[in-house]
Amino acid sequence: MTAANNYERVQHAGLREKIMSAEQAAEFIQNGMNVGISGFTGAGYPKAVPTALAKRMEEAHARGEEFGIGMLTGASTADECDGVLARAQGIKFRTPFQSDPTLRKQINAGATNYIDVHLSHLEQQVRYGFFGEMDVALIEVTGILPDGRLIPSLGIGTNNQWLKSAKKVIVEVNSRQNILLEGMHDIHPDIGVPPNRKPIPITAPNDRIGSPYLECDPDKIVAVVLTDLPDRNSKFADPDDNSKRIAAQIIDFFSHEVKMGRMPKNLLPLQSGVGNVANAVLAGLQDGPFENLTGYTEVLQDGMLDLILSGKMLSASATALSFSPDALDRFNANIETLRSKIILRPQEVTNHPEVSRRLGVIAMNAMIECDIYGNVNSTHIMGTNMMNGIGGSGDFARNAFLSFFVTPSVAKDGAISCIVPMVSHHDHTEHDVMVLVTEQGLADLRGKSPRQRAKLIIENCAHPDYRPMLKEYYERAEKAGGLHTPHVLNEALSWHQRFVETGDMRIK
Amino acid sequence: MTAANNYERVQHAGLREKIMSAEQAAEFIQNGMNVGISGFTGAGYPKAVPTALAKRMEEAHARGEEFGIGMLTGASTADECDGVLARAQGIKFRTPFQSDPTLRKQINAGATNYIDVHLSHLEQQVRYGFFGEMDVALIEVTGILPDGRLIPSLGIGTNNQWLKSAKKVIVEVNSRQNILLEGMHDIHPDIGVPPNRKPIPITAPNDRIGSPYLECDPDKIVAVVLTDLPDRNSKFADPDDNSKRIAAQIIDFFSHEVKMGRMPKNLLPLQSGVGNVANAVLAGLQDGPFENLTGYTEVLQDGMLDLILSGKMLSASATALSFSPDALDRFNANIETLRSKIILRPQEVTNHPEVSRRLGVIAMNAMIECDIYGNVNSTHIMGTNMMNGIGGSGDFARNAFLSFFVTPSVAKDGAISCIVPMVSHHDHTEHDVMVLVTEQGLADLRGKSPRQRAKLIIENCAHPDYRPMLKEYYERAEKAGGLHTPHVLNEALSWHQRFVETGDMRIK
Repeated sequence: MTAANNYERVQHAGLREKIMSAEQAAEFIQNGMNVGISGFTGAGYPKAVPTALAKRMEEAHARGEEFGIGMLTGASTADECDGVLARAQGIKFRTPFQSDPTLRKQINAGATNYIDVHLSHLEQQVRYGFFGEMDVALIEVTGILPDGRLIPSLGIGTNNQWLKSAKKVIVEVNSRQNILLEGMHDIHPDIGVPPNRKPIPITAPNDRIGSPYLECDPDKIVAVVLTDLPDRNSKFADPDDNSKRIAAQIIDFFSHEVKMGRMPKNLLPLQSGVGNVANAVLAGLQDGPFENLTGYTEVLQDGMLDLILSGKMLSASATALSFSPDALDRFNANIETLRSKIILRPQEVTNHPEVSRRLGVIAMNAMIECDIYGNVNSTHIMGTNMMNGIGGSGDFARNAFLSFFVTPSVAKDGAISCIVPMVSHHDHTEHDVMVLVTEQGLADLRGKSPRQRAKLIIENCAHPDYRPMLKEYYERAEKAGGLHTPHVLNEALSWHQRFVETGDMRIK
Repeated sequence: MTAANNYERVQHAGLREKIMSAEQAAEFIQNGMNVGISGFTGAGYPKAVPTALAKRMEEAHARGEEFGIGMLTGASTADECDGVLARAQGIKFRTPFQSDPTLRKQINAGATNYIDVHLSHLEQQVRYGFFGEMDVALIEVTGILPDGRLIPSLGIGTNNQWLKSAKKVIVEVNSRQNILLEGMHDIHPDIGVPPNRKPIPITAPNDRIGSPYLECDPDKIVAVVLTDLPDRNSKFADPDDNSKRIAAQIIDFFSHEVKMGRMPKNLLPLQSGVGNVANAVLAGLQDGPFENLTGYTEVLQDGMLDLILSGKMLSASATALSFSPDALDRFNANIETLRSKIILRPQEVTNHPEVSRRLGVIAMNAMIECDIYGNVNSTHIMGTNMMNGIGGSGDFARNAFLSFFVTPSVAKDGAISCIVPMVSHHDHTEHDVMVLVTEQGLADLRGKSPRQRAKLIIENCAHPDYRPMLKEYYERAEKAGGLHTPHVLNEALSWHQRFVETGDMRIK
């Protein structure tokens, strides 16, 4: 599609006047500004203005001038957004989530301040004024209606709030976003600030409570940029044996809970984190015994799409659709029927503790490591280096009916045990973690004291190569101090230290 | 008041027939049972049956028989409940919160399994079936109406749920509880289990959504025991200089936030944890510039009562009233006017994330220690020994408009720094902690990266004796690994280890 076709996507007369090049639009962004950018897990991020902005930054740096911005998004974007801006050394601070390799290096080199925030918290914290003023919002949309309302893209994230908070708005209209998305979104009425807030009236995953359109005063929109470019659309690896084993155990556990009368036969709304293991669990449900499933999640990926297409899942709510190229084709081919089965909402609502606790979601999230007492590290490599961020895992795990955290039991060909004496960074505490699953087995921690948990986790979840080391640590810990949560304090993080020094957690 | 007067408190004819001695009632409790007991921060716990039960346990143990129970409460009780049962070696497992010295020793000796649960989570986890069946509920009330409805005591906690969950119920009717409490409580309609839940329709701290009475099928009540005994009624220490300094800083911070337009002039609903520092903050508000305050808290103590009595606070919601003897007198003297200003609710509602997030509470909780990145330890001494439990601090901190954690900067005459390189146990992660306050100063962590936080916390909150040690650690950490969250992994917990070995965190 050419820019000429694309022009038809801008139906508001006044905004047609503001169509300009990405380079012209990027002129509205100055050094030191806070910029709210669209994008959630590689969906719906702006694809042209960031590159033009990065060029301005590099030119300024070449002249010896400072040029960096505060960058607030929904979650991760892609190389054409986080990547180009990071390579231009243009991100002074970043929140709430990223997964870009260059930016990650800068964060871990101390060059960029990264603020790792629960995804459900960011919009309200901006609204409360905790991040200062938002100077510009840069939002990708699918189209603009004659009255100026905006058809959202495959990712909503924080867009609704950024359009409200920003003093000036730049819109990228991307004709590669399917125009038939119109009607799939549900933008809730203003949640507002306390003390005058009302309940969020969602009592089922597919409840609609708002309008399918984003709204923004056309006078505030200073630039409209036409693009025609695909989302990130990363390919998924086929589920490997470990992922399949993890999935099989979770599905067995579901069957057990249904049999015990603790869950309905169609389970409860499923939340699934991103990545291959999470996708494998959903793939496993394809062949599982459960029908009439529902989803109340953050990012809807291939696995959940296929559950809907096969009829196993009735409906799902998410804030973004992040598909592989093949899944995107399946989505586009079926978009007319999917429009009544998939609802896209702002992340403040998909991740809201009020809604996820009420619905009783089953939260399934990947982790980097857990410890023998059930604390979980979702963000840091060896305690000091940021990987991506906490994302929505805390929003869901804390408020879930059941919270699962999953990982293969070892990483780096066995050099790293993902079950350790003490996690090197705590993102989810023992109070919030109910079930741990590795390819080795499952530990049901509900109603268990720390010492009872330790025995279960070591026996059921740890890799056989590390089980004796963990037992040995635990036995010595029982002689070292208090027996509520036994630890050898000066060895609790020694496995990580050993890895840093020798490249292996095992003693050679 | 004698048992004869007390008899008038039981107006239901059938239940009068079930009046019996504590010893007789205790016979309904057998070895291995799960017992749901009333009591929240020393208010509303049963005062006669636990002693009789403890005697049965001791007799059984003398005969060489096992006799222990699983004990679930609202929160802490008192010596006549947790204390006697612990001394009888009769508590096999305990949840969700305790503060009894004997029980604490048993937990830390590995003799009792303690499960430290967010207070808002316990009722629903019992309802979900995660703790197995509840055999008996043992609940203190103020009186029984002719139709069998129960007038709650000064503490509601989990009583509503325990009455529903238990197979048999024992009621203690305590005539020392003021009969004029009738009408002060608000027992919400059943919250139920997912997926069929409705919003909790509280939009202001003083909204009433239910009935003033607890309900229980009289047929399920197997025993009624008459008592006439006071609640724990611990005395408060007068605020010391440290507490006053902490309070003054919080109040200054409130003024600043109001000035910045981020909070209304009457602030937002206040939540205040238990203890002397929390009480000092409330005492400080007595002389502060804020009017028309409201409270949405867990335990209402002397400080908040006096704010209401002076007219500074319009109304407050809590699950228990835990007063000093003097404050109890003031409460009883004013109970007729206080009945419209204080609402007592089940802890599932006072601590519910849905409500505290909607109202935007200002959460103020004490801590044991925090680290230079803003992680908070609320529960463990030197990483391994349980103090009391997380209580509701996590329910409120995670969902608050503003979350404060407070502590004096040092403990044990300076031998312990309450600001450490890494906390020895994590209850509240960096993602959930906004403002730290010690008598030295305040660190506003909002929108700050870990390294920015470290500088603020060391400079503003640490005691001058420990500031150079913390700076030295931080500087070495910057050379040791990744720079997102710098740590020297094998020294991160060395301060605690040093204290365990030498009784002092300082290097001698």
